[in-house]
Amino acid sequence: MIGPAGQHTVRQHNSALVLRAIADGPGVSRAGLAAATGLTKATVSSVVDALIAAGLVAEGEPERRNGPGRRGTVVSLSPTGPHGLGVEVGVDYLAYCLVDLTGAVRAEEVRFADNRTPRVFRRTKDFLASARKRAEALGVPVGGVSIAVPGLVESSTGVVRLAPNLGWHDVDLAAKLGGTFSVGNEANFAALAELWHGSGLPDFVHVSGEIGIGAGLVLGRSLFEGVRGLGGEIGHLPVNPRGPRCSCGAQGCLERMAGQEEILRLAGTSSVDELISRLEDGDATAVSAVTEAARWLGIGLSTVVNLVDVPAVVLGGTYARLEPWLREPLLAELEQRVASTAWSPVRLVRSPLGTGAAVRGAAASVIRRILAGAHPGN
Amino acid sequence: MIGPAGQHTVRQHNSALVLRAIADGPGVSRAGLAAATGLTKATVSSVVDALIAAGLVAEGEPERRNGPGRRGTVVSLSPTGPHGLGVEVGVDYLAYCLVDLTGAVRAEEVRFADNRTPRVFRRTKDFLASARKRAEALGVPVGGVSIAVPGLVESSTGVVRLAPNLGWHDVDLAAKLGGTFSVGNEANFAALAELWHGSGLPDFVHVSGEIGIGAGLVLGRSLFEGVRGLGGEIGHLPVNPRGPRCSCGAQGCLERMAGQEEILRLAGTSSVDELISRLEDGDATAVSAVTEAARWLGIGLSTVVNLVDVPAVVLGGTYARLEPWLREPLLAELEQRVASTAWSPVRLVRSPLGTGAAVRGAAASVIRRILAGAHPGN
Repeated sequence: MIGPAGQHTVRQHNSALVLRAIADGPGVSRAGLAAATGLTKATVSSVVDALIAAGLVAEGEPERRNGPGRRGTVVSLSPTGPHGLGVEVGVDYLAYCLVDLTGAVRAEEVRFADNRTPRVFRRTKDFLASARKRAEALGVPVGGVSIAVPGLVESSTGVVRLAPNLGWHDVDLAAKLGGTFSVGNEANFAALAELWHGSGLPDFVHVSGEIGIGAGLVLGRSLFEGVRGLGGEIGHLPVNPRGPRCSCGAQGCLERMAGQEEILRLAGTSSVDELISRLEDGDATAVSAVTEAARWLGIGLSTVVNLVDVPAVVLGGTYARLEPWLREPLLAELEQRVASTAWSPVRLVRSPLGTGAAVRGAAASVIRRILAGAHPGN
Repeated sequence: MIGPAGQHTVRQHNSALVLRAIADGPGVSRAGLAAATGLTKATVSSVVDALIAAGLVAEGEPERRNGPGRRGTVVSLSPTGPHGLGVEVGVDYLAYCLVDLTGAVRAEEVRFADNRTPRVFRRTKDFLASARKRAEALGVPVGGVSIAVPGLVESSTGVVRLAPNLGWHDVDLAAKLGGTFSVGNEANFAALAELWHGSGLPDFVHVSGEIGIGAGLVLGRSLFEGVRGLGGEIGHLPVNPRGPRCSCGAQGCLERMAGQEEILRLAGTSSVDELISRLEDGDATAVSAVTEAARWLGIGLSTVVNLVDVPAVVLGGTYARLEPWLREPLLAELEQRVASTAWSPVRLVRSPLGTGAAVRGAAASVIRRILAGAHPGN
């Protein structure tokens, strides 16, 4: 807080308060909002009128209520209000997800493509245009676009400093695509999706493994991304510093020891589906491959827990599918290496979200920004 | 923010604002405070009167100023206001530090003793009494006591869950000592001392090595200690998971690979003073011992930087003394293992504070609590 508290802050605060109450209990009357927020009815009415004018809130049917007294008109988040568009540039696919103000998915698509070529920018632009066309067909406005990428994104500039698996280095994606976009790390967006639409835990590290290994940290219901937005980088955590050479040049990185590629290599297959069917059949080679990866993952995650003091690990992406076979060896490693497990065991949770967590989180983050009072942009 | 903004919040906010302005520029007039804070002169006067009544602020000499107009009386933090008492229970010493409202040290003492016995509680109680006697002799009130311990302290309860080098397990130190104390991890207090009285960096990890290795994280000028206050635990970071057995039972922990004991063992000496004199003489065995430790420390710190995205490392305690010999191999390891060093090298800083950083931080934290508007307790 760097200045005195004044009118502007109070109005913004009250507006966010009312909007949150409407989001938490759709179909609420102005009197109900006054009771829920502690604001006067006059203040609530003035705030609600402004929210209706901004297209964020819509009046619905009169509140059903018995007994005497005038029945209040109820309000909800507007179904035709601004929608959030999330786009994900994966290593071998593009995905989009369109959500309304309540966070409900209205449209989504995944298109497989090898994005390790300079054609990725043209392709993403076309894909974005098709997503916008879809929103137009649905008759809903796009209130903002967030793009998820598998790389280090500097939060102050939105520049993708490094995305090794895409071969990117200092890419200003918004400039390349020509538009106003918010760009973020896919693992962070996946963690936010987990927070908003998944397990509902307030504090956790979400770890998911596909081509790379990504982690997103949620502490006190907020994303923790470090000083410049580059936090949660665990793919190249040196779990076995004198071990085999990683593609990054270092030795024994977590990605090298417990990534999907290594698991498949050890199991002697090239497909996750086949791996899982072999695991279900109790194939010893497959089980030992996943057990070995789980141990290294446990070493890496014990470091995260010891350093950041986070009481739960959520497995997402491919790790969620492998959870039945990862669980035991991973927990054993955490138990041995995390001091606090003696009185407070680390919870291990399988994410209920599928592989679309990152793009869903990107879309939902647009809505959160709008509801928090940011100006809906394009 | 969970309720509407009201009068109480505004008054607290304004009081903290004025107090901060007085702390930042001692000898300021009420008019100067109004200009610095943006508050009206009437508000400033009422806030200052309350602060004087609470003994936090004292009126001083009239402001020296040329030109016409009435000269205002200036105010400063009161030199006879509540003092902060910090106590440190080290593995082989007790220390206290008494600071005034400006953070200046008024008294300090270190007493060597082996604290790995149950006698530590009685001894600490006596030591505390002697510190209080000293404050009494100086004629200053003790506004609160913070105790630093080398262990995991749960922030919600103040219980020392684990202090392996003291042999403690679930120790409620405040109850054992019979008083109202705030108990915290010594590495966290050392990091706060570094923030308030050291290098002045806003974001850093402070790492210090004596019998154990402790780290304190400061992000955005605030201590980051994770969900339950247990964060920053790096002593048992598994830097070499298939390496030699650590006292904790695991293999190749950072403390086992780069702790003071291991450095001395590799160098073939039992004293840090002798180690340093050998290093200054260019003794090859001593240099190689520190170089080896620096590499493991670099591996551990690269993990911290990658995970928490912190742009600077501050070396404290014994590491500060060894900094000239640690620097090069440690930076080389960070450069190889931290992705962001390509565009933004990690700063390596030697702490200007001595081994008394933790106890100084504990004392200063009492003052910060008082200035932030907490009720001065005992």
